[in-house]
Amino acid sequence: MLYYRKMPAKDNYHDTVVHALVRSGWTITDEQVTLVLPERRLWIDIEAEKASESMIILVEVKGFENPSQVEYFASAIGKYFIYIVALEWLKEEKPLYLAVPVDAYEGILKETLGQGVIQKIDLKLLVFDPLTEEVVQWIG
Amino acid sequence: MLYYRKMPAKDNYHDTVVHALVRSGWTITDEQVTLVLPERRLWIDIEAEKASESMIILVEVKGFENPSQVEYFASAIGKYFIYIVALEWLKEEKPLYLAVPVDAYEGILKETLGQGVIQKIDLKLLVFDPLTEEVVQWIG
Repeated sequence: MLYYRKMPAKDNYHDTVVHALVRSGWTITDEQVTLVLPERRLWIDIEAEKASESMIILVEVKGFENPSQVEYFASAIGKYFIYIVALEWLKEEKPLYLAVPVDAYEGILKETLGQGVIQKIDLKLLVFDPLTEEVVQWIG
Repeated sequence: MLYYRKMPAKDNYHDTVVHALVRSGWTITDEQVTLVLPERRLWIDIEAEKASESMIILVEVKGFENPSQVEYFASAIGKYFIYIVALEWLKEEKPLYLAVPVDAYEGILKETLGQGVIQKIDLKLLVFDPLTEEVVQWIG
């Protein structure tokens, strides 16, 4: 039952994405958002709110630092997909965004494979610039 | 362009699944099946044929040795999903099965999360027994 031992380490870009969201007018309302399923718990990195637009979103940060991009991409979209299934099971309607650095978006995500996956899974993306710590693009 | 350097190592259970398929009357027609996309190549572990039923299938082997099961599960289904997208892009109609040991099937795949993912992604499974090297169950 020692679930807390399984809480994942923050992604390297976690704080970068927090800064980028705050700069875009979002308020961070939660971090390590816990999803409680019957047999296990999952954590999503960030919950953010934009009161002016009555919007609350969830954000999972993936840095794509791994050089074997297909493996990393597979792991990132698998995780996203698992969270989507968990959120649906919980009847949680906040949209989930995968936060990725602009290099990853311009790389594998722009390829035939990446575009195919984005369409098929309805993957929502928050593209950020790790240097300026700004949101570059919202997709989905 | 040195694509061959990226060809993945065989999963620990690769030979086990080959044996299980052969015992069930399948003929292995290819291993490390190459999918050529515009920007990159992917490899699927096994292609097998059952002439008596005019069936050809593709099989990706995942051993689920990793103790952090959610991470491993995410990576396995992400990979499966990427292959499905690639196969559709290539207009390849052979069904793709994820081969998993019976312990994994009785574990995370039987949970709320696993069942939700199986339904949502239409995940096809070949459940094998690593000890007897036999196919236990086909799902999907």
